[in-house]
Amino acid sequence: MIKIALDAMGGDSGLGTTLPGISHFSKTYKADDVEFVIFGNGISINEYFLQNKCACKFSVIDTGANVISSEENPIHAIKTCHNTSMYQAVKYVADGDADAVVSAGNTGAYMVLSKILVGTIDGVLRPALVNIIPTKKGKTIMLDLGANTDCTPDKLHQFAIMGKATAKILLNITNPTIGLLNIGTEKMKGTEVLSHTYDLILKDKNINFNGFIEGNNITDGSVDVVVTDGFTGNIALKSIEGAVKLVASLIKDEIKLNLLSKVNYFLGGKGILSNLRKKLSPSLYNGAPFVGLNKVVVKSHGGSDYIGFAHAIHTATELVRSGFVKNIKKSLGEISE
Amino acid sequence: MIKIALDAMGGDSGLGTTLPGISHFSKTYKADDVEFVIFGNGISINEYFLQNKCACKFSVIDTGANVISSEENPIHAIKTCHNTSMYQAVKYVADGDADAVVSAGNTGAYMVLSKILVGTIDGVLRPALVNIIPTKKGKTIMLDLGANTDCTPDKLHQFAIMGKATAKILLNITNPTIGLLNIGTEKMKGTEVLSHTYDLILKDKNINFNGFIEGNNITDGSVDVVVTDGFTGNIALKSIEGAVKLVASLIKDEIKLNLLSKVNYFLGGKGILSNLRKKLSPSLYNGAPFVGLNKVVVKSHGGSDYIGFAHAIHTATELVRSGFVKNIKKSLGEISE
Repeated sequence: MIKIALDAMGGDSGLGTTLPGISHFSKTYKADDVEFVIFGNGISINEYFLQNKCACKFSVIDTGANVISSEENPIHAIKTCHNTSMYQAVKYVADGDADAVVSAGNTGAYMVLSKILVGTIDGVLRPALVNIIPTKKGKTIMLDLGANTDCTPDKLHQFAIMGKATAKILLNITNPTIGLLNIGTEKMKGTEVLSHTYDLILKDKNINFNGFIEGNNITDGSVDVVVTDGFTGNIALKSIEGAVKLVASLIKDEIKLNLLSKVNYFLGGKGILSNLRKKLSPSLYNGAPFVGLNKVVVKSHGGSDYIGFAHAIHTATELVRSGFVKNIKKSLGEISE
Repeated sequence: MIKIALDAMGGDSGLGTTLPGISHFSKTYKADDVEFVIFGNGISINEYFLQNKCACKFSVIDTGANVISSEENPIHAIKTCHNTSMYQAVKYVADGDADAVVSAGNTGAYMVLSKILVGTIDGVLRPALVNIIPTKKGKTIMLDLGANTDCTPDKLHQFAIMGKATAKILLNITNPTIGLLNIGTEKMKGTEVLSHTYDLILKDKNINFNGFIEGNNITDGSVDVVVTDGFTGNIALKSIEGAVKLVASLIKDEIKLNLLSKVNYFLGGKGILSNLRKKLSPSLYNGAPFVGLNKVVVKSHGGSDYIGFAHAIHTATELVRSGFVKNIKKSLGEISE
């Protein structure tokens, strides 16, 4: 059995998203070997599952209404959060009582708690949030997506190493190409930190380094792994999400605008667009693991819907199944040899 | 007459793009009151216009093959670039011999040269690259798009002021809402520079401040003006461009994939998509003015095609027609009163 600890209180709409997400996961994904331990307001959780089915075995650990809000400073939060659903869920995994944890709560607090309780793999400076991005040619791994606002060259170099290990596991690419995100491809472009990082990665013979790449290269499939700091990565990822939504919305406007477009839509456009939605829906990419930790810790987007939360749970179960942490440790060992 | 100085040698493909761009502009846009002074390789330029029509009056100032390459460090470039097309074109405008200048060359060098030769408006700390971004609700102004990699809070605050002035002129909005780009909307999110900038803008009673916004808010129409440093702005803009291209490419793949989609496409999808292309093509947004300079200085994207270069010329002529610099000066004066 795969045992997953779930923080049910995190995210913009808390239980309103996480509980339908749990139910949706149990109906939609391979779940017969998955068991949940749900942390949150016990009364509400039990009430929900009296009315709605959860096909998975589950137990509830009542942490009341205690939650780390998204506004809270992570450093402040971790001092006073011992009774919250997030703390208890992370601790449960850290103690070896579950295989993975999923939360949609405060990213900074989740990261700090995971570092302290779960711990980082030997030699890892900072864990990074990593995820798969759809591209023209297939899929790309990108990190960091928001865990580390400020990054030194040695941390970014390590993101390249961890990105390589992640690409090996998630994309099945043994020698992935790595690009460093910048505002131009020329060596002299960008910040001093990026210039030093460039030199550092270039010297690393184990990295198949493509040099600097630009924002548009994230989704054109130029590289297998995009390395950047958490500030830039978060902005780039959300800019991409926003642009995809913009295109979808303009298509809808276009259809509403005139009769000919309406006819066009029902004749043919609808099929094309619904297939497109299936490929690009952010819910189907939701669930970013922290790479560099001793356990599987998955972050669900705070604003994600229940379909997205279900996908984040799916990501966690798949990472456990594939031996993600063991493989990352192995890859890091091989690379640093 | 509106006189535009054109650096014909700049950009990834130099004359191969700029000359067809000039020709395209003269055929496509209102050009009867526009006159060009073209800086570059005289022989090639004259040869081109013997074979291809330019409906506008133009003269050529021969600067040979001298060009500032995109790889060159701007500070180094400006010491040795006096004989290049970019330097001569910018100097021409600075001397009052033309109303505006357009270049697709090295952004950093263009910015530094313009600052030195054309000069900044009194009180402006740093000029910024600004442009219009299409959104769900219409259009948004965004700055800086790549001129200033590192920004202090006082510079970012001034970008908000210049962004307001630009929105007044380009979008006809007198009291635009301003958002500061960050990795979360909560006050404690992001970097120290952003936190200080937040306080600074909040105190400014002349700014209609919406607080922090995220990457996805750039294109959802949440605010009229997006303020950010040139590093983040450049990455966000290019990420958006890449995402739009990704969607277009996935639609094409979808059509190729199966017969039903092909039929769908010819029945209806084609019309919808071609209208969409007309709305989102990067060429139709190409041409970003520097705001804060004493003359109209427009940057064309280095990788833009000739249609984009023509649009950048169009932007320059429209800015001259609307009295952009005079109005920015006036707005800055009013705001800082």
